[in-house]
Amino acid sequence: MEEKQLLMIPGPTPVPQSVLLAGARPMINHRGPEFKAAIEECTAGLKRVFKTKHEVFILTCAGTGGLEAAVVNMLSPGDKVLSVSIGVFGDRFAAIASTYGVNVEKLAFDMGTAADPKKIEERLKADAGKEIKAVFVTHNETSTGVTNDLKAISAIVREHGALLLVDAVSSMLAMECDMDGWRLDVVVAGSQKAFMIPPGLSFVAINDRAAEAMKTAKIPRFYFDLGKARDYLATGETPWTPAVPLVLQLREALRLLEKEGLDNCLKRHARLARATRAGVKALGMKLLADEKVASNAVTAVRKPDGIDVSALRKLMREKYGVVLAGGQGSLKNEIFRIGHLGLVNEGDIVAALGLLGLGLKGLGMKVDPGAGASAALQVLGE
Amino acid sequence: MEEKQLLMIPGPTPVPQSVLLAGARPMINHRGPEFKAAIEECTAGLKRVFKTKHEVFILTCAGTGGLEAAVVNMLSPGDKVLSVSIGVFGDRFAAIASTYGVNVEKLAFDMGTAADPKKIEERLKADAGKEIKAVFVTHNETSTGVTNDLKAISAIVREHGALLLVDAVSSMLAMECDMDGWRLDVVVAGSQKAFMIPPGLSFVAINDRAAEAMKTAKIPRFYFDLGKARDYLATGETPWTPAVPLVLQLREALRLLEKEGLDNCLKRHARLARATRAGVKALGMKLLADEKVASNAVTAVRKPDGIDVSALRKLMREKYGVVLAGGQGSLKNEIFRIGHLGLVNEGDIVAALGLLGLGLKGLGMKVDPGAGASAALQVLGE
Repeated sequence: MEEKQLLMIPGPTPVPQSVLLAGARPMINHRGPEFKAAIEECTAGLKRVFKTKHEVFILTCAGTGGLEAAVVNMLSPGDKVLSVSIGVFGDRFAAIASTYGVNVEKLAFDMGTAADPKKIEERLKADAGKEIKAVFVTHNETSTGVTNDLKAISAIVREHGALLLVDAVSSMLAMECDMDGWRLDVVVAGSQKAFMIPPGLSFVAINDRAAEAMKTAKIPRFYFDLGKARDYLATGETPWTPAVPLVLQLREALRLLEKEGLDNCLKRHARLARATRAGVKALGMKLLADEKVASNAVTAVRKPDGIDVSALRKLMREKYGVVLAGGQGSLKNEIFRIGHLGLVNEGDIVAALGLLGLGLKGLGMKVDPGAGASAALQVLGE
Repeated sequence: MEEKQLLMIPGPTPVPQSVLLAGARPMINHRGPEFKAAIEECTAGLKRVFKTKHEVFILTCAGTGGLEAAVVNMLSPGDKVLSVSIGVFGDRFAAIASTYGVNVEKLAFDMGTAADPKKIEERLKADAGKEIKAVFVTHNETSTGVTNDLKAISAIVREHGALLLVDAVSSMLAMECDMDGWRLDVVVAGSQKAFMIPPGLSFVAINDRAAEAMKTAKIPRFYFDLGKARDYLATGETPWTPAVPLVLQLREALRLLEKEGLDNCLKRHARLARATRAGVKALGMKLLADEKVASNAVTAVRKPDGIDVSALRKLMREKYGVVLAGGQGSLKNEIFRIGHLGLVNEGDIVAALGLLGLGLKGLGMKVDPGAGASAALQVLGE
């Protein structure tokens, strides 16, 4: 039944009906009063989500475009940065900077592990001449389902004095990300994750330290120029024609999120992630990540012996309508991933884990198909 | 009555109901079979629209992002280009290139006039050393409602040998743009114009000469890297998460356009533009552009003596629900613009011109309020 799918990938995520319909309203002028009201409400709402009093800009692009905006507005060719990577998206952040002539030193950790704050501290302490101008960190690494200890890392980076650029694309609203409290300088998020709206927008927040850095950053920029975004936002506009329906959808989604309560949203993600991990283990499978650093947005599961990842994903999609993600990079055929962020509730987790049990059994694994759903329910009932 | 507006700006344009709803379907995986089918159908459809057998890429960004993609994928810092400008968007194309270190020579013509192909020919003939690597041209200048003679210009540029980069953001589907027939090398279009879908996508087509140039172009690029777009399109994907609903909307809009017939779509735009110009003149106002070069997408009208452009636009919007565009750049308070592209029909033109008559009369102009609608009807009845 093609018309009903359980979309359990780490973005794009399912979209609430009222949000879908908010994007299906007749078009409006992007330089008129209705749009001005929408973008101003969205900007104020985003500040509450990011927990910041500083500037937040809405860009029409993928999350990768937001990361590019962070790089090109903060740095100059030849600047030295320390790029912490624990997976595909950490590597991407570094690749963007290298492309624009930044001198990138990578501090990589094994896929499936979190960055060790001590190693970051060691490296920054060794930088007595303060050559490292910025540090890049991925808050939640979507490719491995691992969350970095951003608060601890930020304290270390601040001690050194470098600017901290954070990829919070898949973390924002799925786990705590306290921009001002943790003193993060640049934070990038994306629409198609826990915000519950379709892909097409990225949100870039910069604090006053970042605004200062922007004044001297010399990488050329036009479409992603945050200075232009700031000038236009002052009059309730964007420099280039924005994805109008997505901004109206963002407004509706932010209203829904405020109704749920931003803290409740975080708790929901934590609870569903715990239930997912319990279910996966009860089905006899192994988690890629240590549970102490496991993500609230996405769970990476090592493929059981004798099971082919693409065969499992195909069966789950075609027979049961459950859409799972595969592995990325070197983990391509080693793991599959269950997304549980955005518009996801208890029933989705129980259904997904139950059907996953059937799928594994169907592919010949010796497993009690109900074990995953039962274990998840146990956690959900606590 | 806020719920019903006649949106007569040159983009974003009104969106058909079936297209709105195509974007309101439940989210799907952007790396799954449903999306692959959609992007492949869209790419094939775009090739028919652009009249090209070459490559077309769908980018998640505004039209300005598409122009940036054209610049950064074709050129290297220090390259010399001749940038033909007849208004704000011609200037923007030049500004993007300058930002990325391209050596831009501007060939500007007065706002409201078209580029003189002879002047372009003179300049290119003087370039005996073939220093000019590329020529930029805006097919339809949205800020002035003037269309350049792209076919003639292309023949001249091809004679010289430079690459021709065309901003067809507001022209594609509103006027003939024959990429392969006219041998255009790079053509950029945007979703929120005659395509009848919301803003958020740009389409960039490159022919084999452009593909060759891309191999040696050295401006750094990441988000807008067409090489990456090509690699992913080969498997029905995009490198970064695309605006999924907009691609589904593009598919629906392309089906509607094929049903109308692409040639009929062009004829409709030409007929409605003629009717608009007749109506404007019958209301005692002057067109900014000579009718020989007037656009089929948007009509720029000189403000009548004693009428304030912003007061007129405010009255039209608040009292009659007709949304008109103001002037841009140096023409800000000198003209207003009537968009007539995309989902626009005879009734829209008659209503807009009729209500414009009332609006002008309301602001004290001595005018027969029915004269505009009558003149438009005269043309439409021919």
